[in-house]
Amino acid sequence: MKLWGGRYDVETDELMHQLNRSIPFDRRLWQADITGSRAWAEGLRDAGLISHAEWEALDEGLQRVAEEWAEGGFEIRESDEDIHSAVERRLFELVGEVAGKLHTGRSRNDQVATGTRLFLLWESARLEAALVRLQTSLADLAEANPDAIMPGYTHFQPAQPILFAHWVLSHFWPLQRDRERLRDLRPRLATLPLGAGALAGHSLGVDRQQLARRLGFERVAPNSLDAVADRDFIAEFLSWAALLGVHLSRLAEDLIVFTNPALNFVRLDPRFTTGSSLMPQKANPDALELARGKSGRLIGNLVGLLTTLKGLPSGYNKDLQEDKEPLFDTLDTLLALLPVLADVVRTMRPSPEAMRAALDDAMLATDLADSLVRRGVPFREAHHLAGRAVAAAERAGCSLRDLPLAAYQAIDSRFQADLYEIFDWRAAVAAKTSVGGTAPEAVREQLAQARVALAEGARSGF
Amino acid sequence: MKLWGGRYDVETDELMHQLNRSIPFDRRLWQADITGSRAWAEGLRDAGLISHAEWEALDEGLQRVAEEWAEGGFEIRESDEDIHSAVERRLFELVGEVAGKLHTGRSRNDQVATGTRLFLLWESARLEAALVRLQTSLADLAEANPDAIMPGYTHFQPAQPILFAHWVLSHFWPLQRDRERLRDLRPRLATLPLGAGALAGHSLGVDRQQLARRLGFERVAPNSLDAVADRDFIAEFLSWAALLGVHLSRLAEDLIVFTNPALNFVRLDPRFTTGSSLMPQKANPDALELARGKSGRLIGNLVGLLTTLKGLPSGYNKDLQEDKEPLFDTLDTLLALLPVLADVVRTMRPSPEAMRAALDDAMLATDLADSLVRRGVPFREAHHLAGRAVAAAERAGCSLRDLPLAAYQAIDSRFQADLYEIFDWRAAVAAKTSVGGTAPEAVREQLAQARVALAEGARSGF
Amino acid sequence: MKLWGGRYDVETDELMHQLNRSIPFDRRLWQADITGSRAWAEGLRDAGLISHAEWEALDEGLQRVAEEWAEGGFEIRESDEDIHSAVERRLFELVGEVAGKLHTGRSRNDQVATGTRLFLLWESARLEAALVRLQTSLADLAEANPDAIMPGYTHFQPAQPILFAHWVLSHFWPLQRDRERLRDLRPRLATLPLGAGALAGHSLGVDRQQLARRLGFERVAPNSLDAVADRDFIAEFLSWAALLGVHLSRLAEDLIVFTNPALNFVRLDPRFTTGSSLMPQKANPDALELARGKSGRLIGNLVGLLTTLKGLPSGYNKDLQEDKEPLFDTLDTLLALLPVLADVVRTMRPSPEAMRAALDDAMLATDLADSLVRRGVPFREAHHLAGRAVAAAERAGCSLRDLPLAAYQAIDSRFQADLYEIFDWRAAVAAKTSVGGTAPEAVREQLAQARVALAEGARSGF
Amino acid sequence: MKLWGGRYDVETDELMHQLNRSIPFDRRLWQADITGSRAWAEGLRDAGLISHAEWEALDEGLQRVAEEWAEGGFEIRESDEDIHSAVERRLFELVGEVAGKLHTGRSRNDQVATGTRLFLLWESARLEAALVRLQTSLADLAEANPDAIMPGYTHFQPAQPILFAHWVLSHFWPLQRDRERLRDLRPRLATLPLGAGALAGHSLGVDRQQLARRLGFERVAPNSLDAVADRDFIAEFLSWAALLGVHLSRLAEDLIVFTNPALNFVRLDPRFTTGSSLMPQKANPDALELARGKSGRLIGNLVGLLTTLKGLPSGYNKDLQEDKEPLFDTLDTLLALLPVLADVVRTMRPSPEAMRAALDDAMLATDLADSLVRRGVPFREAHHLAGRAVAAAERAGCSLRDLPLAAYQAIDSRFQADLYEIFDWRAAVAAKTSVGGTAPEAVREQLAQARVALAEGARSGF
Repeated sequence: MKLWGGRYDVETDELMHQLNRSIPFDRRLWQADITGSRAWAEGLRDAGLISHAEWEALDEGLQRVAEEWAEGGFEIRESDEDIHSAVERRLFELVGEVAGKLHTGRSRNDQVATGTRLFLLWESARLEAALVRLQTSLADLAEANPDAIMPGYTHFQPAQPILFAHWVLSHFWPLQRDRERLRDLRPRLATLPLGAGALAGHSLGVDRQQLARRLGFERVAPNSLDAVADRDFIAEFLSWAALLGVHLSRLAEDLIVFTNPALNFVRLDPRFTTGSSLMPQKANPDALELARGKSGRLIGNLVGLLTTLKGLPSGYNKDLQEDKEPLFDTLDTLLALLPVLADVVRTMRPSPEAMRAALDDAMLATDLADSLVRRGVPFREAHHLAGRAVAAAERAGCSLRDLPLAAYQAIDSRFQADLYEIFDWRAAVAAKTSVGGTAPEAVREQLAQARVALAEGARSGF
Repeated sequence: MKLWGGRYDVETDELMHQLNRSIPFDRRLWQADITGSRAWAEGLRDAGLISHAEWEALDEGLQRVAEEWAEGGFEIRESDEDIHSAVERRLFELVGEVAGKLHTGRSRNDQVATGTRLFLLWESARLEAALVRLQTSLADLAEANPDAIMPGYTHFQPAQPILFAHWVLSHFWPLQRDRERLRDLRPRLATLPLGAGALAGHSLGVDRQQLARRLGFERVAPNSLDAVADRDFIAEFLSWAALLGVHLSRLAEDLIVFTNPALNFVRLDPRFTTGSSLMPQKANPDALELARGKSGRLIGNLVGLLTTLKGLPSGYNKDLQEDKEPLFDTLDTLLALLPVLADVVRTMRPSPEAMRAALDDAMLATDLADSLVRRGVPFREAHHLAGRAVAAAERAGCSLRDLPLAAYQAIDSRFQADLYEIFDWRAAVAAKTSVGGTAPEAVREQLAQARVALAEGARSGF
Repeated sequence: MKLWGGRYDVETDELMHQLNRSIPFDRRLWQADITGSRAWAEGLRDAGLISHAEWEALDEGLQRVAEEWAEGGFEIRESDEDIHSAVERRLFELVGEVAGKLHTGRSRNDQVATGTRLFLLWESARLEAALVRLQTSLADLAEANPDAIMPGYTHFQPAQPILFAHWVLSHFWPLQRDRERLRDLRPRLATLPLGAGALAGHSLGVDRQQLARRLGFERVAPNSLDAVADRDFIAEFLSWAALLGVHLSRLAEDLIVFTNPALNFVRLDPRFTTGSSLMPQKANPDALELARGKSGRLIGNLVGLLTTLKGLPSGYNKDLQEDKEPLFDTLDTLLALLPVLADVVRTMRPSPEAMRAALDDAMLATDLADSLVRRGVPFREAHHLAGRAVAAAERAGCSLRDLPLAAYQAIDSRFQADLYEIFDWRAAVAAKTSVGGTAPEAVREQLAQARVALAEGARSGF
Repeated sequence: MKLWGGRYDVETDELMHQLNRSIPFDRRLWQADITGSRAWAEGLRDAGLISHAEWEALDEGLQRVAEEWAEGGFEIRESDEDIHSAVERRLFELVGEVAGKLHTGRSRNDQVATGTRLFLLWESARLEAALVRLQTSLADLAEANPDAIMPGYTHFQPAQPILFAHWVLSHFWPLQRDRERLRDLRPRLATLPLGAGALAGHSLGVDRQQLARRLGFERVAPNSLDAVADRDFIAEFLSWAALLGVHLSRLAEDLIVFTNPALNFVRLDPRFTTGSSLMPQKANPDALELARGKSGRLIGNLVGLLTTLKGLPSGYNKDLQEDKEPLFDTLDTLLALLPVLADVVRTMRPSPEAMRAALDDAMLATDLADSLVRRGVPFREAHHLAGRAVAAAERAGCSLRDLPLAAYQAIDSRFQADLYEIFDWRAAVAAKTSVGGTAPEAVREQLAQARVALAEGARSGF
């Protein structure tokens, strides 16, 4: 059904109709659209614009349309332009002329903005749950592996030994920031455009505050012109998702590298690897590669929308129809990815032996320097002397702990026999007791903090 | 059918399978995949790796699979991972064990790269045709309206009068550059990866030059490792499309503004406007707004792929599966948009009267300055004096042609009575005879050049 | 001064040194760097790692270095790699060997992250002030022009009449969301990395909570590995800025179009327009065009950083040095743009007459339909009938108010003589009394709400 | 000097002047600007618009201005808006009134477009040389290491053995495509806008074809309105650079991973590594990390410009001033990065022993399958059987070559004793003789092809 005949009696060009038509993708909004329409019908009733009986007819009709969608029985017609006109068309078929009263004072401009916000409010709750599940997998993995020591890298070069659990939790906190950011977004998302009409507001006395309460919105949009053209909530959401995607890509990158046989720090469950059509031995970390790769798509969706919004004139412009596909794609991407990553993390097996094998004495060079600092050598000088020791060991073709004391003292006489005490991986790790450090007790404290964050997530949220 | 059992006898996790599965979108490659497989089978036959009878069985089987796809009879199974395994699975069902020989020496890595390139070669020809159609609409519009004079803008402020046909053709040439760029891309697109195996090449003696000839490729990829991971042709294509999208957005922006009643330079055919669900009078330029808005999506698709490619290690990585959806979406977007834009241009009606009404004498201030230049005043000084005349007319509340000579001479005595001759729109336009200028003869020449470009497009190309 | 000699005694390659060197841009961090170092020195003192006298020497030395920077006397040496090593080098020169104790337990990794956060905390306060100033200009403009009625557009086609003040305020609220978003970011920005060492924490007993209090941070980063590689605060900030840039681009686009003589709704103060080197009459809205154009750059800066972060392995990687230039560029862009825009808005003169001239009766077609609704005609039918009236007027070449009653009744007999009452612009606007609507009383209410938001901004914030 | 006084006698607002002012960055165009002006002066002379003496004065004056720039003596004044007005101002100072004739018929719109194109033509030649140097380093490295065998990866899992030289050359060809693309761009870059005036062309008879010849352009822009607003050449160039950046990021990623001690395939020259301020042992591959990280910036620059261009109306708009900074930044980035990468590659030392140590028998599983294929087993079945052998070896805790024949035959009796012949790395590599394959003879052929490509690069080009 075309909602806008009258002025011209020509048919829309067929290719134009296809280009313009959004129901192939916006059909997903059916529930949000109908929920919004039911609230609007109540508003019209309360404002005395339709009778109680008319409201009942509309409300029952809308519920029947919803049932058809829920049961898969709703038939989209070729002439349906979007979800809004499809629902209204079907309502006509079910309840007759009174359907024509539903759109009183309302425009598709405020209708679609309302439906999209409602939809995203609902989906955000699913997303937060999926995030919590991945965070829980990480916390569980850290908790189950409190002792393993691995090389910590900077510049992907061995830097200092750290607990594997510390590394695991380093991927927990970015996700915690993501949860925080998702909640920050909520009040702006839960701002009601309904009642803004096409751009100017309405003159019917429908109470927008009441509409907001009915639909679970926190605020009423304060300017009708802004209300219909504001897609900030989607841009913010896509920004949110892009940064989450970056976090997932970094987790994935670490794990992809760690599963290479030369490192072999973790082993993925075969249910989460794939083989090769040509090479029989392969066990590929496809899920992780997709997590890494799909971060590009999430960034692309963000850029697409920002660019579409750039330079648009005031008020609704059809360009804004381009908001939905990136939104849906981003949601689908994350809702497919997060559960698999949660399971990949949950089922993978770390190998403390392989981690240990990758440790190299030179990673204790800072501790060597610190041992001089304890004798009063300024750190900068101690750093230099330790660097020379590393070079000496390298020349001698031995590790730092096998470099004889004489060689150390040839560098500087303040090197003493007790320097060899630093060559203890466990002690080196245990010394990093600062808040957020890698010492076992600090990591236990960190894990407890993570559990608190998760528990809060379970209570509150979307 | 899983192409890669053997090593592990566990089932892939179900969510993982769904995440990994590409057949929902890569099914579009069926024809290219089968064409590539037929060429490969010929290669195996020529190299003596399969018998003539085996080749016949494979080739007929592949043709039957193709027929099933063409007729809509191909049934995708839940277990089909991608188009390649689906086709191979069906081939097994149709021809039995011999199907197992088709993949000899081939990997999905070279197979999918070959299929995607072939597909894009074919689609590029459709795109070029769509571009030519839009260019032709523009050339026709210019030719049909040789006389209308409109305000030319810089900074969207009236600058100098130009021919409407000149403005129309200013949108022809960016598209011509797009066609050139599309052709430049061709040799890199038509580079054959088939025979690169998984990464290392093959040891079977299949002749890659011969494969290239059979499939219509121009070159053979010179390094097998690069061949399987090279997605430059898609990145280049998406860059191409993003810039084309920018061109369309600029055409659209001009037309959207020009159809506002305050300017009213062109009127769109009602078959290409839409109405409002609320406001009965509306005739909205939706097609143009979508053209403008979709440029964001085209840029987003480009960014998505570039970001996905960034920092990938050598060889095939599963991240590369993320190449297809942006590619398909960009193709679909352009193939939906270009024909509608061609028709919008073809059917719109320019209003020379409205254009004329928007002309303002101050647009001839440069000509006023030039009149002083002809008396030997250096341009920079003449510019200054003409500016003062504009200000004087503004203060006097009249247009430049109504400003009395005395007022001009009060500014500078070199202003003479013949200055009023410049106030002739047609003469002002006619004077711009430089190559590429807006004089009617120059525009006629330009149009002829455009027709030549179109004729070349018809002959050669993809 | 190279902070990292010792292991190798070769000179860094000269081109490599130049590529690597960040002091040409990170010198801006001098104050934040020194502030962070002073806090660290206090921490070392409190933990008993340096004596009180040593602390005094360091602190006084650091203050002297700060003075040199503030007074422009600091001399950068060719060998200075970054701001951190430049400051430490100068400290050595000023206070001698004790300077070598400052870096005890600290790494450039936590140092640079701390300095950058501190810097951005400070700059954010400036940004918020600049935002408030632009918002204030908008609120003042709305308040000063309560009566003017202009065409409201959707699809840049005339839709319904609205108050000019309503349009002005439609650009206030996006900026208010920007302020909200900037504050949401604060706790994540004000999270302290100092004390995280290179990646593993430190073993010296320096109290990180105390450091946070000293530096005005709200939280301590809970994981040292995450702390040194977390650039989310910059990515979030650039996302924030990109969306703000989109808002500015939309304001600019509206104003650029409104200053075209065909609309002429507002006139810019000549101090904020520029002329042409060729065309003496030009008065170009350059500031607005730059506001529109620079939104691209802000988006580009965001994309650059997100792409850089994508797929990075754990821990600090040199790639992260690429965070600063987009950050600085985005800050500079906004701090140059916002004050000018505030002044452009403050000084421009609206023309109610020109707005009135652009109103067209067809913009009241919705009101015409509503008049039928009040007679019990369902809106959908009334919409259709009003559309036919628009078409009839168009055919008759007259405006809706000049179409005779007979013509209306030929369409539908429910059209009655009182329909002509709707042709009153002021009444049409006044009817839109819904919250956020365009009626004068609703706009007054909206303005009051805006003033409250501004007052809150003045009180709290960064 | 303001080029555009006259109409208004107010001063431009100071902040506005600063915002608008481009000379802080466009000063780089001085040589191109002056070269363009000299050509224009010749054009004016040939068209009889200035006398020979006037031309001489202008030409000598322009040469003197150029000398001042070249020698660093040019003084920029606070009032200089851009490079064009600065040069013209100085010319006035040097040659007096006649300077006012230079701008006859020319606009800054065509002037700046001409200067930017000329500048980029010159810079492109430098870029191509830098590319060739990096390619040459790669070819030399491949040539110097013909024998080393390394694990080839897919999904960063060991796949098949390949020659190190083959891996090296896999990074040569993407750069070769970049060179091709750079040349494809040339004709569009070398298209002359000069003579297009502000938008409409000129009326002075200056011969644009002649201008093009003088300035080394290949074509004359065919439409003056398009000519002044066309920034496609920059967008194309930034697309070009973004994809080149992706190539560099992939090379960098490979090398960063290969220098991790767990793989240790290559060792960087210490002149190209950096140390840590905290950890004395570090030797970090900063140059490579910057190469990887800066690909984000190159993509960001592209996105920035595309977004700026999106939706712009016809003709010059000030938004276009935003083209220069991304262009300059991209140029600087590449010209700093490419030489360092060339030297990193040139000076690094591969370790064939470390590569050999990373080879694992399972990488020959495809060869194992092929051995069955040679006995007539269809590949798909052979693949399955080889997979079972890999699993059996894994269960037995031994490598494939140590798995007893009985174990093989327990899987399938077609496994025969000669299967052990496949466990020969050199033979496995040597078998991949297909064009572009990893066999030594194929790689030699590939290297020869690379040398031909380089030689062509040396001959022709920009």
